[in-house]
Amino acid sequence: MSAKDVSDTIERGGTILYTARCAEFRTPEGQERGAKICRKHGIDGLVVIGGDGSFAGAQKLANLGINTIGVPGTIDLDIACTEYTIGFDTAVNTAMEAIDKVRDTSTSHERCSIIEVMGRNAGYLAMWCGIANGAEDVLIPEKYDYDEQKLINNIIASRKAGKKHHIIVNAEGIGHSEAMAKRIEAATGIETRATILGHMQRGGSPTCKDRVYASMMGALAVDLLVQGKTCRVVGYRHGEFIDFDINEALAMKKDVSPYMWEVCNSLSHNYKKQ
Amino acid sequence: MSAKDVSDTIERGGTILYTARCAEFRTPEGQERGAKICRKHGIDGLVVIGGDGSFAGAQKLANLGINTIGVPGTIDLDIACTEYTIGFDTAVNTAMEAIDKVRDTSTSHERCSIIEVMGRNAGYLAMWCGIANGAEDVLIPEKYDYDEQKLINNIIASRKAGKKHHIIVNAEGIGHSEAMAKRIEAATGIETRATILGHMQRGGSPTCKDRVYASMMGALAVDLLVQGKTCRVVGYRHGEFIDFDINEALAMKKDVSPYMWEVCNSLSHNYKKQ
Amino acid sequence: MSAKDVSDTIERGGTILYTARCAEFRTPEGQERGAKICRKHGIDGLVVIGGDGSFAGAQKLANLGINTIGVPGTIDLDIACTEYTIGFDTAVNTAMEAIDKVRDTSTSHERCSIIEVMGRNAGYLAMWCGIANGAEDVLIPEKYDYDEQKLINNIIASRKAGKKHHIIVNAEGIGHSEAMAKRIEAATGIETRATILGHMQRGGSPTCKDRVYASMMGALAVDLLVQGKTCRVVGYRHGEFIDFDINEALAMKKDVSPYMWEVCNSLSHNYKKQ
Amino acid sequence: MSAKDVSDTIERGGTILYTARCAEFRTPEGQERGAKICRKHGIDGLVVIGGDGSFAGAQKLANLGINTIGVPGTIDLDIACTEYTIGFDTAVNTAMEAIDKVRDTSTSHERCSIIEVMGRNAGYLAMWCGIANGAEDVLIPEKYDYDEQKLINNIIASRKAGKKHHIIVNAEGIGHSEAMAKRIEAATGIETRATILGHMQRGGSPTCKDRVYASMMGALAVDLLVQGKTCRVVGYRHGEFIDFDINEALAMKKDVSPYMWEVCNSLSHNYKKQ
Repeated sequence: MSAKDVSDTIERGGTILYTARCAEFRTPEGQERGAKICRKHGIDGLVVIGGDGSFAGAQKLANLGINTIGVPGTIDLDIACTEYTIGFDTAVNTAMEAIDKVRDTSTSHERCSIIEVMGRNAGYLAMWCGIANGAEDVLIPEKYDYDEQKLINNIIASRKAGKKHHIIVNAEGIGHSEAMAKRIEAATGIETRATILGHMQRGGSPTCKDRVYASMMGALAVDLLVQGKTCRVVGYRHGEFIDFDINEALAMKKDVSPYMWEVCNSLSHNYKKQ
Repeated sequence: MSAKDVSDTIERGGTILYTARCAEFRTPEGQERGAKICRKHGIDGLVVIGGDGSFAGAQKLANLGINTIGVPGTIDLDIACTEYTIGFDTAVNTAMEAIDKVRDTSTSHERCSIIEVMGRNAGYLAMWCGIANGAEDVLIPEKYDYDEQKLINNIIASRKAGKKHHIIVNAEGIGHSEAMAKRIEAATGIETRATILGHMQRGGSPTCKDRVYASMMGALAVDLLVQGKTCRVVGYRHGEFIDFDINEALAMKKDVSPYMWEVCNSLSHNYKKQ
Repeated sequence: MSAKDVSDTIERGGTILYTARCAEFRTPEGQERGAKICRKHGIDGLVVIGGDGSFAGAQKLANLGINTIGVPGTIDLDIACTEYTIGFDTAVNTAMEAIDKVRDTSTSHERCSIIEVMGRNAGYLAMWCGIANGAEDVLIPEKYDYDEQKLINNIIASRKAGKKHHIIVNAEGIGHSEAMAKRIEAATGIETRATILGHMQRGGSPTCKDRVYASMMGALAVDLLVQGKTCRVVGYRHGEFIDFDINEALAMKKDVSPYMWEVCNSLSHNYKKQ
Repeated sequence: MSAKDVSDTIERGGTILYTARCAEFRTPEGQERGAKICRKHGIDGLVVIGGDGSFAGAQKLANLGINTIGVPGTIDLDIACTEYTIGFDTAVNTAMEAIDKVRDTSTSHERCSIIEVMGRNAGYLAMWCGIANGAEDVLIPEKYDYDEQKLINNIIASRKAGKKHHIIVNAEGIGHSEAMAKRIEAATGIETRATILGHMQRGGSPTCKDRVYASMMGALAVDLLVQGKTCRVVGYRHGEFIDFDINEALAMKKDVSPYMWEVCNSLSHNYKKQ
């Protein structure tokens, strides 16, 4: 497999390979069967694109003699060893453009809008959209204290400060946007609507950054296989494409950047200082 | 007000004028006050962009001596006197692009997806998206018989015919997409997700057709005012921009094109013939 | 071939069929060979998507016993029997979005910009963009008198009226935008740049209107073949999808709508009245 | 000025401030006049968004007692102290989408296409598009040896390897795409077209990365001013937003990443290995 093939696969929107989760592969028998199929077809190296679950599978296969290199692919950005994951940039632009459109009418109707974006247990997509869309409040699992009264006070303060709309970007990890909208409307008297962006965030033609970074990661993965490496994960850190041992990568932790969260809050709660 | 001003106003996404519904204007006193304000500011003609409600208001104002011309503006296309309404083309493209993205992942995950599009009591947006996105089922208020068992049978038949995904475009006028998804998943065993596109369909930069047709309608409205006409509504019919008496326009009825609905069905249920 | 197949083919950006012009088919021998290949493969009906040249070819094939139906497909809109041709809506939106972007910087740099759009000998693309983009001057082959001094006077008048930019949409049928830019800059002293949009106007994911209308035309073409019809061309006229004899269709003439051209001029030269 | 104001300014496409180059400011008298105007209006700090020229101006103003912080804003990415400049991500996505569209028809017409992208003397935009669009050849000023015969041999080799199209992304710093197209067509016999994307690359609604990174840089610039700093430039390096002394920043040099250029070449010349 050439670097070109990897990048071709990565560059297409959606999972064109029709790969899916496989319960059987969680068992030693399933893993042995997978390795056998690889050997049968002369596949001596595999590039595994996915998240922590896929990397754990890659590790099993590596233990059975099939060289594997993991490449981080998820729109949620929730892989600890890397500051970039394939698909995040496309998803965050899709979400941002949708929120731009919601804001167009939110402003003219003097409304409060809750927009729920994906991200599983991570708030990256929400935080980026919060900054990019100039949201008045951003709720992410890593930081939200579930003090809804504070949120309601913000909405009232923002209306008093003359803001015609109040956009809340809510992360999937917090969820329950519909119920939240009802409670906010009841408490503030301001018409409040929830929009759950859903799976459209996973599709679409990839952005330039996603195409270029995916190509770089695919190229590095192939280079590693050519060098006879196995059980490694490719990552992007401190401005460079590097690789880690899968075990080390799986043990890492990461958190949202404190400075980015500070800027996000400073921009979103700006109406308070006016 | 020049034609340029009308078209500038129309060309911007969202209601930049901050106009909104006004309960007071439903009363004779409110209408008299509105007319007075117009006279005070030397406004002797008004172009009223909206739907049947706005046109009814325009009529009241016309009766009080302010010349009014109605221009049909709604993303729902549900104004009887015209085959085109300002905003429909932008909204239908926004919805279509979102559904394209949902379909990307729907295919790879072998899933059934219900996508609810706007349109109030009319199914135009849903029918157009149904054709444009190659949906497997299209539910519109004008035609749906609420026979959900038939829908479920379709989904099973389509899966048997080898289709990896099943997209249902559901009109707002039918709604209840979340509950429908749950019932379909229970009855078919196929993972089913609902996406409600919501207010993003009202925003965004207008398409070329919306800009050009809005400019044509705005120009015609101004021409009519210059000719001293009042109580007229601009429309697009049989390929021409024309005008009607507001009363006549409000009394008209229209339905979805039978041939377009036939084509929509023929394309969406195509898997049956395979 | 089902209606679905036709619309699938039409819905994809670009000529995915890899069909191309064929000199041999202009000769009776080439036509006979084409008919023979059709008969050999059991093709008793053909939907021919293209312009007048393709329809003339379809006619030859029809004379040799292969039933043919023409469907108008060109971004130039220059087929006389129809008010809509497949691809125009996508191309005009692509051009409009590019011009929106040019205008962003044109305004801030107080510049004159000539943007050349496609359309062969027809000015439809240019006229639609002219209206949609709010161009200050629109040059189309059907109307331009090649009085460049008048154009230069317009630019000077518009600058005097306080306009920070002057956008000229120039049709391919007039062309020579680079040389025009140099002459304008020399005569006015205002920095003038030409941008030739080129072949990007032919690509991209189709708009909703193009997908829906192409589906309608494809369905009608198949219906006609099923009815045993041949040597017909599908068209869209006065708001309906209809069909014509190929000979009649080839003999028709059409011109730009006088009212649309009047509106285009009224909007573009609006600065004169300020 | 709050961080919100900076980011609002930055988030809008195009130079909405109507600032422009000013010859007078190159003279000591002009600089003194500029500083006076700042003092008159109580402006004790200035965030200067631009490139090396703007930073040199900021330095002059700083010397006259007006605190200045530079923020790198250019679509060319050609500022040495930073791996990111505001506008690059939007411009590179605009160029990539345009090239996607050109490629749609290039493939079906078996053509060679030269697409010239901006970048002044730097090849970043061209290299990123080269990777993202899967170009067959990428010409950048930092690496091109002007050996056109090698380029022509590539085109012939790619055609022999069965490629239906040959896309050449050419950087503005090399230019002369029209003449190059003529020479290639003469030497290969393959129809060759040049498209110069031009100023559309400077406009449009900013991408998410540009909005977020611009907000981060704007926030940091304001933080620096609040701390009483002056004559600093904000940059993004090794995954962090940092600041440099303007003199140091102006003295830095940077080059295209050797590994990215290697990947770019490996992907673009992939047909050679088939």
